[in-house]
This record gives sequence, C-alpha cells and structure tokens, in this order.
Amino acid sequence: MNSDLEKYFDRLWPICRSITGNGLRESFKILQEIIPLELEEIPTGAKVFDWEIPKEWNITDAYIITPAGKKICDFKTNNLHILNYSVPQNTGLTFEELKSHLIYREDLPEAIPYATSYYKENWGFCISYNEFKTLPKEGKYKVVIDSTLKAGSLTYGHLLLKGKSDKEILLSSYLCHPSMANNELSGPLALAVLYAKIAALKDRKYTYRFVLAPETIGIIAFLHKYGKDLINNLEAGYVLTCCADKGNITYKKSKKENTLADRAAERVLKSLAKPSEIIPYAIGGSDERQYCSPGFNLPVGSFIRTPYQKYKEYHTSLDNKEFISFEKLNETVDTVFEVIKTLEQNKFYINTIPFCEPQLGKHNLYPSIGGTWGDVKLVHKMLHLLSYADGTMDISDIACKRNLTEADFTEAIAKLTEAGLLKEK
Amino acid sequence: MNSDLEKYFDRLWPICRSITGNGLRESFKILQEIIPLELEEIPTGAKVFDWEIPKEWNITDAYIITPAGKKICDFKTNNLHILNYSVPQNTGLTFEELKSHLIYREDLPEAIPYATSYYKENWGFCISYNEFKTLPKEGKYKVVIDSTLKAGSLTYGHLLLKGKSDKEILLSSYLCHPSMANNELSGPLALAVLYAKIAALKDRKYTYRFVLAPETIGIIAFLHKYGKDLINNLEAGYVLTCCADKGNITYKKSKKENTLADRAAERVLKSLAKPSEIIPYAIGGSDERQYCSPGFNLPVGSFIRTPYQKYKEYHTSLDNKEFISFEKLNETVDTVFEVIKTLEQNKFYINTIPFCEPQLGKHNLYPSIGGTWGDVKLVHKMLHLLSYADGTMDISDIACKRNLTEADFTEAIAKLTEAGLLKEK
Amino acid sequence: MNSDLEKYFDRLWPICRSITGNGLRESFKILQEIIPLELEEIPTGAKVFDWEIPKEWNITDAYIITPAGKKICDFKTNNLHILNYSVPQNTGLTFEELKSHLIYREDLPEAIPYATSYYKENWGFCISYNEFKTLPKEGKYKVVIDSTLKAGSLTYGHLLLKGKSDKEILLSSYLCHPSMANNELSGPLALAVLYAKIAALKDRKYTYRFVLAPETIGIIAFLHKYGKDLINNLEAGYVLTCCADKGNITYKKSKKENTLADRAAERVLKSLAKPSEIIPYAIGGSDERQYCSPGFNLPVGSFIRTPYQKYKEYHTSLDNKEFISFEKLNETVDTVFEVIKTLEQNKFYINTIPFCEPQLGKHNLYPSIGGTWGDVKLVHKMLHLLSYADGTMDISDIACKRNLTEADFTEAIAKLTEAGLLKEK
Repeated sequence: MNSDLEKYFDRLWPICRSITGNGLRESFKILQEIIPLELEEIPTGAKVFDWEIPKEWNITDAYIITPAGKKICDFKTNNLHILNYSVPQNTGLTFEELKSHLIYREDLPEAIPYATSYYKENWGFCISYNEFKTLPKEGKYKVVIDSTLKAGSLTYGHLLLKGKSDKEILLSSYLCHPSMANNELSGPLALAVLYAKIAALKDRKYTYRFVLAPETIGIIAFLHKYGKDLINNLEAGYVLTCCADKGNITYKKSKKENTLADRAAERVLKSLAKPSEIIPYAIGGSDERQYCSPGFNLPVGSFIRTPYQKYKEYHTSLDNKEFISFEKLNETVDTVFEVIKTLEQNKFYINTIPFCEPQLGKHNLYPSIGGTWGDVKLVHKMLHLLSYADGTMDISDIACKRNLTEADFTEAIAKLTEAGLLKEK
Repeated sequence: MNSDLEKYFDRLWPICRSITGNGLRESFKILQEIIPLELEEIPTGAKVFDWEIPKEWNITDAYIITPAGKKICDFKTNNLHILNYSVPQNTGLTFEELKSHLIYREDLPEAIPYATSYYKENWGFCISYNEFKTLPKEGKYKVVIDSTLKAGSLTYGHLLLKGKSDKEILLSSYLCHPSMANNELSGPLALAVLYAKIAALKDRKYTYRFVLAPETIGIIAFLHKYGKDLINNLEAGYVLTCCADKGNITYKKSKKENTLADRAAERVLKSLAKPSEIIPYAIGGSDERQYCSPGFNLPVGSFIRTPYQKYKEYHTSLDNKEFISFEKLNETVDTVFEVIKTLEQNKFYINTIPFCEPQLGKHNLYPSIGGTWGDVKLVHKMLHLLSYADGTMDISDIACKRNLTEADFTEAIAKLTEAGLLKEK
Repeated sequence: MNSDLEKYFDRLWPICRSITGNGLRESFKILQEIIPLELEEIPTGAKVFDWEIPKEWNITDAYIITPAGKKICDFKTNNLHILNYSVPQNTGLTFEELKSHLIYREDLPEAIPYATSYYKENWGFCISYNEFKTLPKEGKYKVVIDSTLKAGSLTYGHLLLKGKSDKEILLSSYLCHPSMANNELSGPLALAVLYAKIAALKDRKYTYRFVLAPETIGIIAFLHKYGKDLINNLEAGYVLTCCADKGNITYKKSKKENTLADRAAERVLKSLAKPSEIIPYAIGGSDERQYCSPGFNLPVGSFIRTPYQKYKEYHTSLDNKEFISFEKLNETVDTVFEVIKTLEQNKFYINTIPFCEPQLGKHNLYPSIGGTWGDVKLVHKMLHLLSYADGTMDISDIACKRNLTEADFTEAIAKLTEAGLLKEK
C-alpha cells in the first residue's frame, strides 16, 4: 500500500489546486480511482450562509523576468510561487512597484511561503527571502500571470456508504492547497485509504459519510446543502489533516468535548503502545470550525499528527515529500480505523438475568473445578459485562471501567450473547 | 477478646466446611454462641434465580495408599487434600489413571491447593507439588473417598437486630471454606465480634442485618428470599472478608461508587492515622458481586485487608493460623465499627435561625470576652454546622467540608440542639 | 494616592472605635470625605434576627496607678489597653483582685492584646506580658475607667451607586476596632478608594452597594433591614479585610463556591503575574459568615491578604502602621478593581450567524491575503467568541476556555458587535 500511496501522491503533487478550478477537478479525478466520490459543482455567486461562492480561478503560467533577463518565481517550477487567485498581469515594473507584490518570510529564508487572496482581487508572487535579497533594485522587471478569474463553479466531493443504520459516522478532509505534502495531500490520501478499509468491513452498523471539499468555503457549501442531515443523523465524525509528519498522533476534541466521537478516540489513543496527544477544541484549526459552529455543534473531532502551525514547514515549500513519511500516514489511518472498529462495536447491552450473577458453569462458561482457573481473564470480562449491563452505559463506557477498550470484550460479548445471558438493547 | 477469638478460631479450624453439609452446620452452631444467627435450610433442587441448590455433600474420610503402602493425601490430616464435593471412591488405579485426579501448583510447590467441583460430579485430591514429584510411577494406588452426595439442603444464617428505624445496615460474610484462616475464618469471626459491639450500642438508629452464608450460592439463596427487603430498606452494607492478614485495611467501593456506604467508609479510612487503601468496585471479589448485580445494585462495599488473589497464600494450605494476626483482625473490626458509629450519627440538620448567625453568647455558647478564646475549636464547629445546616447536606457531608468526620461534631451538635439552634430534619 | 491614604490612615488611627459610640461616628465622618456613606442609627434594644442592639459605649479615659504611683495601661497612650466596652470604675484593689481583670498573652510578651466584652458587663485592662511580670504583688492599685454604657444607638454606613441595571455588586467592610492597622483600618480605606474608582467608571452596568458597619452586629443590623434587597438583586459581593499586610492576595470563596463572584475573582487572580491564593469558604472569617448564612447564602466571597489569625500580630498592638504597606493596600484595591471591571464586562452573547463561521473578510475583520497574518490573535479571539457564543455560556466562561479573562476580549467583542455578528443576549 505504501508504494500505491506514493504513486498517487506523486501524481497529485505537481497539480496547482485552489478552492475552485481545473486543478481541483483534476485532483478529484485521480482520487476517484480509489474513493468513488460524487462531485458537485456550486456556481459562482451562490449564497452559502454568510458566504458567496467566488469566481473560478484557473492558471497556466506565471513568472517574473528580472532586469538581467533571468526568469524567477516560475509557476511551472513550483506552483507556490504564485499568490493563489492572482488576477492576470503582463506588465513592466520597477523594483519598488514590484516589491509590494512579493511575499517572503525573513524568519524562514530558504522557504517559498504559501499565500492566497481568494476574496479580494490582487496579484503577487511568493519568493524565498534568500532569493528576494539578491534582486537588483534598479532596472525594469517584467511580470506575467496567465490566469483567468471568472464565473464558474466550486467543486466538492462526497460519498455515502450505507450501513444497517441511518446513523452516520463522518470522515472529512480538504482539497485546495497547491504542492504541499503534510498539509494537505496527507489528508485526502488518508481519507481514500480509510474508505477502502471501511468498505471492506462486513455488516457495518453505521452509514459512513466521506467529505472532501475545499477548506472552509467548500465545507460551508457542503453544510449548506447537507448540514440538516448531519444534525439528524451524525453520531461521530473526524476531520483528517496533517496526517503524515513524524510527530505523535494527536486527537483534538469536539467542542462538546465528551461526545461518542471523543470517547472512542480517547480510548483508542490510550490503548496504543505509542505516545499520543489529546488536546482540547480550539479555534485555529480546520473544518471542525464549521462542523462545531454554534448552529451545528456536531460531535466532530480531528485526527492530526503535529498540529497546524506547530511545525515550521507549515504553509511553505518545505512541507514536501521529504518532510512526510508514508509509514506515519499509514499509522494514522490504522489508528482512525481502530476508532471506527470501536464505534462499530459500540452498543448498549442488557443482562437478561439481572438479579445475582447467572450460573456461568451451567452455561458452560466457567471452569468446572473451582480454584483451577481456565481463562480467568475471559471469565472476569464476562462477569464485568454482566455486572454493568443495565442498559445505562454503552459498551465503551463499560470497557473503560476496566481500563480496556470495546474491542477487548468481543469474545466475552459473543459468548454471553450466544448463551442468552446478554442481549443488545 | 484476642484469646476468646483465638479459641473460637481453634475450634472452627479443623472442621471440613463446604457449601452444604454437616461441617457447615457444625460451624454455624459454634458461631451461634457469639452471634445468634437464625439458620435456614434451602432444599436441594430449589431454584434461586439462575441457580439451583445442589445436592448436599458430607465426608468422613479420604486418602490414597501408594504402591509402597504409604497413606498420603489424608483428609484427616488436612481437609484441603480432598477436592471439595468429591463423590465416593474405593478403587485401585495406576499412576497414570490417578494423575488426572491430582491437583497441585508448580508455582507454589510446598502448598496444598484448595479446589472444588460443586456443580459437576467429580473426585480428586489436592497435593503439594513437592510431594507429587516423589510419587512412584509404577505399581497400583488405592483411593478411598468416604463421602455422600445426595438430596439434602443448604444452610445459611442471618439475623435482624432492630433499631429505631426500619432502614437497614448490612454486614455480610461467608462460610463454606475448609481449613483456611484469612479467607475465610477471619470474616465470620469479624462478623460475630461486630455483632457484639453493635448490639451493645444504645439507642441504635438503624436496623442491622447480619448475613453469613456459603459464598455465592448461599448469598444468592438469601437474596432470592430477602432481596426485596434490601431493595426497600438498605442504606449501606459491607462484605467482610480477608480481615486478618498483615496488609493495610482496604475499602472496595460499591458499584454505584458514591453511596452513603462509600462516603462513610472513605471518611473513616482517611481519618485513620495508619495507611489504608480505597479501591474501585471490580469483578473478582466476593458476595458484593451479587449485592451489586444490576437487578439489585445495592449500596454495598467491602472491607478487606490484602485483596483476594493478591497474596500468594490465597486458597492454599499456607493461608493458616501463622499467616494471620488476631490483632489485625481486631483492627479491622474496630475500623468497621467506626464506620458504623459514623453512620449512626449520620443525620440531616436544620439551623432554626437561618438568617445571620445566632448570637452564641446569648445562648451561653461563646466566650464572654472576645479575643480571649475558650474552646475555639468547638465554637468553630458550631458555627460551621450552623452555616451548612440547611437540610440539603447530611452531617457527614458537612463534616467533610471541614476535613473532619461526623464523630468530631458530636459535642457541637449536642450543644446546639440543647440550645434550640439546631434540629434534626 | 499613597500619601492621601496615609493621611486618612493617620487621622483615623488614634480614635477609639467600638461597635457603638462617638469614636465610631467620628471615624465615619472622616471617611465620608472620600466615600459619601449614608449613616443609619439603630437604637439600643432593637431586635435584629437573634441579636439585640447593645447599649452605646463611650469612653474618655482609663488607667491604673500602681502602688508605687506609676500610671500604667493608659488609654490615652494606647486605646488597646482598655477592655473594649468596660464599665466605669474608680476603685482601689490589691494585685490579686486586679489580676483577674488583666488580659495578657504569654505567647506574645511584647504585645498589648485586643479584647472586648460587648455582651456581658465587665471591665478590664489589656497589658503586655512583659509589663505584667513587673507588677508588684503588694500594695494598693488604683483603677480609673471614665466610660459610660447606656441606651443610645449603633451606627452603620451604606451607599448605593446606581448603574444601568438594578442588579447589584456588593463591597463590604467593617469599622469597630480601635487602633489596629491591617485588621481593620486597611478594609475601610480599601472600600473608600474602590468607591472613587468605581464612581469614575463610565456607563456602569451594575448598581454598587457599599457597606461599612461594625463587624457582625452591624452587618446583622444592616441585613435585617436590607437583606431582602440583596436576595433579590445581588449578583456578586466581596468582603474586604486585612488588605495591607505583606502576604499574597488571597481570595476566599463564597459558601456556594462557584458563583459569578467566585469565577470572576479566580480568573483575575490566575491572570496576575504575582502569586496569589484561593481558599475555600470556612467559618473563622468575617462578615461573609452573615452574608453566607443559610437563610441568605449570597454569592459573597472575601479579599484578604494574610488570613485573619494566620499572622501573629493579629488582634494586638503589633498590628500597627509598621506592619502594613500602603503599596500592598493599593495592590489589593487594584486587584479588586480588576474583578469589578471583569464583572462589568460579563455578558451573554449570541452569534447572529450561527451556521458555519461568518466570512470575516467580507466584514473587514480578516486579512485579505491568506497566509500573511495580520493580528492573528485578534482573529482567533473573534473566531473563538463566535464559536462559543450560543447564549449558554457567559463571556467569562467563554474567555476561560482559552485561558484568558473577559478583559482580553474587549476589542474582539467591539469589532464583532459593530459588524453585527454578535449581539448581547
């Protein structure tokens, strides 16, 4: 899978994505080979809550010619060089005139920053500070931006994978960044691999909703159309982003803090042999901001590794293939999949013989010679379940009382259910 | 009392008890000299919840003769040698045939293990691994088990010590183990001594229910008949077991975790000068499993010293008189009695002058020269009581607000009540 | 201000105050120069809850002449020498007769203790143990106490500073101690300075109630008349006492423990760069005992520095001007004023665009070039507010979610309100 993932990564990498446009559509088309997202196009000018779908932006080339005739900030070499959503230009300027259109970071002199101007018409180039310092102050520069900004549409993808229940689990990531690896290609790739794993689960209890949309505006457009369905049906959801750097896995709680989504995620993280972090909900994140806005306030947390803005490579050309690890990406996917399995097993049970313990021996669930223990752990798990299964605590809460996860109780539940001592509520 | 306790211990020690039979009845008869339990006999075959009262087992002798003519595993030397509930045998066998009926523990080679087969007809001998290793592989062994297993009854004892209120406090232990000291003779002896102490309390508020029954099946039979009374009346209860080893006193919470039983026990333990442990409810215990089963879910915790299965001597011949201490047994009893006194004092009070503090000086409860404090602690306790006595917190909760126990407020309550400033709700 | 405060301190210092009398009235008159308290006189014999207003006490002179003709315990030198509320005397006594009327502290031999006998007619002198030890046992002593104890009245002061709302904030201190500095002159002076600061606040939301009364009996008289108003209107209140010693600022919680008063105080203390203490409600305090008595149980905490009785100088002649610091007194005042400002800003807000985030850029609240952050902290504060402003949490609770205080959100609230994105509930 690592080599497959890497091939998809390599194909997606060079495409110049934005919140609209053909680069975005081309990226969706590649991802549809592994996750059958349905695409929707929302026209420019459509109102979505407080927002309006912007004009569609497309670009084929952009560069600057220095007074010495050197081509710099070449879009074809690195698409981060262009201020995303730059309007067309073909003009000559002095250094002073050009300077206000150059974006660089003195604190990270070797990096090309990533910048956008979606909602105000503007143009600009992003350049490393090291290169910026070499630019001659005298002479005429030439600027070419071969882009279009006109009425079109915004594209997002989503997919409903039906389960036995209409109750839903949401997995959501975003697609709108040009060539950057951890934020963002790791997110869509994680989503696609999770789709394959979940689709392969037999007898799924929950319906799964996969959403891949341009960050913020795309999710707002999606919520404008489907938010009511989520309010009605969503049991737990996770935003996936920054999934492949070498930091620990981090779970950021939903705003409600103690939803099923949070409890399942926290239990899986605590059961892992490796270190992980659990952090509170906070603004300064990604699309969970929309899912958790006051009108929705959905049970949606986030899986990340190193949080956005906590690694210096964030939103620069240094967030590249060398920065990430496909093994870490798979580890993130495996962890989220553990959470999914935990949720699938989440049930309320009732002990059918509530007064005193049932006689487990009679039901062939207890060693016949007291004092010579067979599988004492299994017996204790069965007794623990019977003791707490009064229908008021879900199986994950009951498991937690023994510092275990729901998955640890699979055999005990099966044996008790078969014996008629436990039934699902 | 230590020497008295020791005499009872010595008389009870050699008797071969089981969950039914004459050894059990003989033990009850001895204990009735110090706690006037009423005995009930539940006939073989009676249904009690998911269980059925088994046949009654009695035994007079059991042993093995080795090929060399040596008598081993002699029941009359140590009644742990016989697998409890073994059916009669009088037969010759090879070592290979005998071997599957021998129970030993390689991890504890000097100990005779304790084992039972109550619910499946079987026979066997328990033997130390050291002795097992010396048995010749060749020649004929002779096995004699002079036992009977036939319709009879199960015996349990209980006692209701009336107080002013019908509300009940439960003290429960079990009687069914052959010659072992900490688990179990310490429990019934603790119960008997507590009976004497509680019966001597004047003006008891609560009614006390003492239960002594074979573990699990005996308590289930008791609950089948009296469980509804407990549901209606029980305010707090404690299972007593493993009360005499040299470990710290341990309180195991009820499943509900924050009942009156738990609060009173925790406060007393925290007020002790000696170290003690408070542990959560967990399966892997004793009769609290029945009291806390979902249908009952009663406010019943447990007092133990070293928890069952946490000491290596548990359920072997090493759990003997040398292993225990009568001083520790008395310390456990004294601690539980402190809890009882705490509960007896547990009351809801109302400040009769709720607006501002009463003028304590006018009621002769305050030193007349301000600045020259008399019993400042007593005055502060009175003011503390008056401040919190709004009828919403019981006296133990109020005491806890000052990191004290109810007993610490006895004088303050008396003085305020006498002055008419406080009344019981 | 320090020098102003010091001047008032110096004028108030020598006056012999008590719970009634002309020294008390004279002190009020000086304080009225800086806080326009309305004075009320409650006549001797008036019933206030469980108490009765005592006779009024006035004193002009008191001393002892030793057998050697030396004047000691001279009231005019230090008014602590007289047992407060001593009845008139002009008599000769032996040392043995005198001794039972002498109050001293062996544990603090250089200090004159402070003592009172308000509710039992008595007389006495307070003397340092060092001086007491020098008194000759032989010969005749002469005792002169030129006091009166007769029907009169008890004086207290209060003031209502109207705000836009009838909801009230209470600031309360006491006036009844003779020459002592930390307990008590620091309290009335803090109250007076806070009055000036709060009166200068524009557009006050809350109505402020200032109360200055003799401790205990004075507050009880006040509550007898105005307690119902407090029950109806009080949102938060603070007792001020021991405000000028060199210890850390301490907040003692209200009995309810989690009122608006407590939350605001705790947040301000936690935001301070300097160490501070938060302690639970406990008897052994001052007038919060009356405010928090069961019938009232008002949201009233206390600001103190070193708690009463935790410093050895308490209630002795050592609690003098050298013991206190006017800088510390001002620091206490500033801290309480921070709490007041926090309360003034305490509001419930509603996000007017609850579904998804509003488009801040459209409202000119977001940098137009994404990736080039302007005031990222301000943007995050706005997003945080919008996310939590569902009307269920007050602004201080919302601030706390980001480990900030309400004051930190002033600009963000203003900008969002101006843009119509946030409105007060």
